[in-house]
Amino acid sequence: MATYTLGIDYGTNSVRALVVNTANGQEVGVAVVNYPGGTDGILLHSKDHNLARQSPADYVACLERVVKAALSQARRQFGAHGNEVIGIGVDTTGSTPIPVDAQNQPMCLHPEYKKNLNAYAWLWKDHTAFEEAARITEQAKKSRPHFLAKCGGVYSSEWYWAKLWHCLNVDRGLFEATYAWIELEDYIPAVLCGVSRPEDVVRGVCAAGHKAMFNRHWGGMPDAEFLASLDPRLERLRARMPSESFSIDHQAGRLTKAWAATWGLPEGLPVAVGAFDAHLGAVGAGIKTGTLVKIVGTSTCDIMVAKNTMQVPDIPGVCGIVDGSVLPGYIGIEAGQSAVGDIFRWFVTSVCQGHDALQVKLTAEARRLKPGASGLLALDWNNGNRTILVDPQLTGLLVGMTLHTTRAEIYRALLEATAFGALTIVNRIEEYGVPIERVVCCGGIAEKNELFMQIYADVLNRPMFISRSCQTCALGAAIAGALAGGAYPAIEPAIEAMTGVKRKIYRPIPRHVAIYQEFYGQYKVLHDAFGAVAGQTARVGQTARVGHTPLSGLMKNLLVLKQKCAQA
Amino acid sequence: MATYTLGIDYGTNSVRALVVNTANGQEVGVAVVNYPGGTDGILLHSKDHNLARQSPADYVACLERVVKAALSQARRQFGAHGNEVIGIGVDTTGSTPIPVDAQNQPMCLHPEYKKNLNAYAWLWKDHTAFEEAARITEQAKKSRPHFLAKCGGVYSSEWYWAKLWHCLNVDRGLFEATYAWIELEDYIPAVLCGVSRPEDVVRGVCAAGHKAMFNRHWGGMPDAEFLASLDPRLERLRARMPSESFSIDHQAGRLTKAWAATWGLPEGLPVAVGAFDAHLGAVGAGIKTGTLVKIVGTSTCDIMVAKNTMQVPDIPGVCGIVDGSVLPGYIGIEAGQSAVGDIFRWFVTSVCQGHDALQVKLTAEARRLKPGASGLLALDWNNGNRTILVDPQLTGLLVGMTLHTTRAEIYRALLEATAFGALTIVNRIEEYGVPIERVVCCGGIAEKNELFMQIYADVLNRPMFISRSCQTCALGAAIAGALAGGAYPAIEPAIEAMTGVKRKIYRPIPRHVAIYQEFYGQYKVLHDAFGAVAGQTARVGQTARVGHTPLSGLMKNLLVLKQKCAQA
Repeated sequence: MATYTLGIDYGTNSVRALVVNTANGQEVGVAVVNYPGGTDGILLHSKDHNLARQSPADYVACLERVVKAALSQARRQFGAHGNEVIGIGVDTTGSTPIPVDAQNQPMCLHPEYKKNLNAYAWLWKDHTAFEEAARITEQAKKSRPHFLAKCGGVYSSEWYWAKLWHCLNVDRGLFEATYAWIELEDYIPAVLCGVSRPEDVVRGVCAAGHKAMFNRHWGGMPDAEFLASLDPRLERLRARMPSESFSIDHQAGRLTKAWAATWGLPEGLPVAVGAFDAHLGAVGAGIKTGTLVKIVGTSTCDIMVAKNTMQVPDIPGVCGIVDGSVLPGYIGIEAGQSAVGDIFRWFVTSVCQGHDALQVKLTAEARRLKPGASGLLALDWNNGNRTILVDPQLTGLLVGMTLHTTRAEIYRALLEATAFGALTIVNRIEEYGVPIERVVCCGGIAEKNELFMQIYADVLNRPMFISRSCQTCALGAAIAGALAGGAYPAIEPAIEAMTGVKRKIYRPIPRHVAIYQEFYGQYKVLHDAFGAVAGQTARVGQTARVGHTPLSGLMKNLLVLKQKCAQA
Repeated sequence: MATYTLGIDYGTNSVRALVVNTANGQEVGVAVVNYPGGTDGILLHSKDHNLARQSPADYVACLERVVKAALSQARRQFGAHGNEVIGIGVDTTGSTPIPVDAQNQPMCLHPEYKKNLNAYAWLWKDHTAFEEAARITEQAKKSRPHFLAKCGGVYSSEWYWAKLWHCLNVDRGLFEATYAWIELEDYIPAVLCGVSRPEDVVRGVCAAGHKAMFNRHWGGMPDAEFLASLDPRLERLRARMPSESFSIDHQAGRLTKAWAATWGLPEGLPVAVGAFDAHLGAVGAGIKTGTLVKIVGTSTCDIMVAKNTMQVPDIPGVCGIVDGSVLPGYIGIEAGQSAVGDIFRWFVTSVCQGHDALQVKLTAEARRLKPGASGLLALDWNNGNRTILVDPQLTGLLVGMTLHTTRAEIYRALLEATAFGALTIVNRIEEYGVPIERVVCCGGIAEKNELFMQIYADVLNRPMFISRSCQTCALGAAIAGALAGGAYPAIEPAIEAMTGVKRKIYRPIPRHVAIYQEFYGQYKVLHDAFGAVAGQTARVGQTARVGHTPLSGLMKNLLVLKQKCAQA
């Protein structure tokens, strides 16, 4: 008899539920429900564009509907019954902390805080805490540099402690009334399992490690002394936090009788510990050592793992290195590019003033161009640089234009630039002893744009695969559910059995590889010259006279390459 | 009784004749005739895109028609009669040498050379001699560095000796049969005056000095030893060349009886020595010390003069410094930007795929933007850099793009970049002791694009004027004719009386000046870093660590400026 697992995926604008066959990953039921509140599910503030909150009540209301719909489809179309479901997994956005009371109820449910946006969930993309983030970075640089070393050297305004501290600074009344702050990835499993005390919420290491500076080596959360150096009232919160956090092979608890009855699922169904969407997305895409999973959208999230028996050193500029954040027994490594699809869209819509049809046309034209024959080179920094420079203030650059440069050539140069950005991440991680043999992509661009995939194969000089599932996050959550339900003894065979890649594989073309290696040499010159801002970046040792830097020959080098490529 | 002067202007595609009142510069008759041969008057070669020749027979046939038409209009509309014309001046393109026989007849008129393009006029934009030019530069660097010092450090493939030598290398038969090579600026006056021996052709110092390395200080043309070091057969040509060359205040001769009869002009009318179009254009625009005349088109030609009683040193990167080439008694200084209007047209047509209407729209949109508020910065090198880097292999660059950058912002950044390029020329010339107080522009862009003019006023921090005449080259030639005819005792009062500027003057706006000074600082950083290729360029002394060059902070500096400007 087939058994099934349920994956629940909380995205930025909607929640998705996926019912999956535990034997082979077949997706038998899926449903999506948009959050009803605010703008596309996000509560905004008319005057503060940094603010982005969400309603925990929406999360719970949508949960009921989306799971019901997915199970109903599975039953109708595949005859899969609720009593054949053996486990549940959850992934969410993050860092998305929710202030709760001593009964684990969100503060916004109290009538006196109903109109107070600070009492809602602080969505990952809320940037109100930018000043607190800078002060945390500054303080940690002085007294706890090892904290920063695990998160790329800079603490972000999107992250847990910055948000809590900002609440303390702007809304002390609410802060004092709040008992604890629970990450969304931990809150949803707690809701499923009916956990009524914040102390009993099982915390996932994904959010704790990547966003709250949790690390077993220094005893869990940041120490009391450090938190007190920021603000003594932050320190008091620490006492209410568990000293441990867990990977997805642990259980957060068991499904309550009420939820079981609502959905027609077995009572006491095991619920896995939650994790972030990108991390479970990597699981759903078939992550393993040597594989980089690239979630390509407006930006990218790059996930890798390395056996935790090996010593992974701190990798400068890489956003996060956390033991167990992706898979139990492995170091999870998270990197990313601040803009990929966004850059192509910018060029097509803002510069060329076209729409999707023009993007298709430019892609077709760019595909007919010979690699390198335009002599153009771009830096993919229109939205700053996340990895490896960790500098949101960097900007885009394009060089090599003549009076004959075409828009298709520029479009192709922008595709290539994002591939060079991807290679810079891959190289940085490999330099620190984590080999990357192949890349598995997910996302619409990877599925639709063959030119993008071929350029990446040629630039990265590695085969490029596309995830078989197009809802890898929910599939990853479902795999965690299968593990919780005992379908597999460990995560690796679950991934092996339940994930896959599409038949079409993009393989490097040696002639293109050679050309792009030369162009990448020039990209690196630009990258190091313009990017050496954050102080912790490119490892350039030599001294040189200004006027004789590698830049002084860059345009001529591009011209030589261009001529060579045009004749090839 | 009013007297008139006739200016004849040989452009790249057509010849223009202008009849002008010698008292006040009033233009009373004008005509234009396109050269009938080839493509837009240019004889091309299907396989060699560097080749561009013209037919001397076309020159003469068009001359007859164009002068007749201009005089006819002057008579009909202003009652100006041929017998009131007191002199003729001529300007032409160059270096455009014509191979002639011992009777001063173009070699292409001989039946055996009729089909040989080498026997025609070698138009200025012919680049077939690129190898010979490089060898001349190389040889002069070794043995005659002072030759190069007067022409910006690099001998061009467009110039006299390179073209002659190339003919020798590819068509020895023709070269041996040719008696002499006459520049078009000297050939036309010789035709008007019926000069039948090449030795008797009066040579203008404009072509000789700027293109053939003529200089009185080293005894005229390059010495025999130097020419022999290139090729002994070049040396033999030197013997047939006059040892002197002249400014436009000298006469080339007197109009023949035949031409006088054809046009109804007085026999024996004085004909001034010829000069290049840009140089007589500067005259027509009112050149004097302290004034830079900027002929703005697809590229620019920048002309200045300095009293020859002052010692003008060699100015690195400036195309030409020749005593008397613009005005008698003054050092003529020629500089230029390889692309100006061409860059705007490239962006509008190739990138935005629009036409003139879009250029008007973008100009209107760009005009509404605050200076600096886009944070964009460009290098205006899409067609290389003529002055001050003398490097045709440089390319364009754009930096500062975000996901919100608009096409109007890019268009404005390109306008600004060409203004920064213009300022770099002005600064270089002033550094060497030639002050520039005001700028007079000619050309369609200056007349039509108010945003262009205001940006230039703000960037150059100088008032910007527009020439009153829109045919300054022909007017300059006419002024030379007036001088030849004795209407003025010297060139300065002729210019004073016969030229002027339009009423509309663009004056610097102090707030914009301050902003652009900051952006120019960043432009110079880019310029020096990417431009230090030719080895003779930016004077940057300090040493620095790579990774801590000024470039490493450039993007952040632009961001700070952008925010400041947006709030202003």
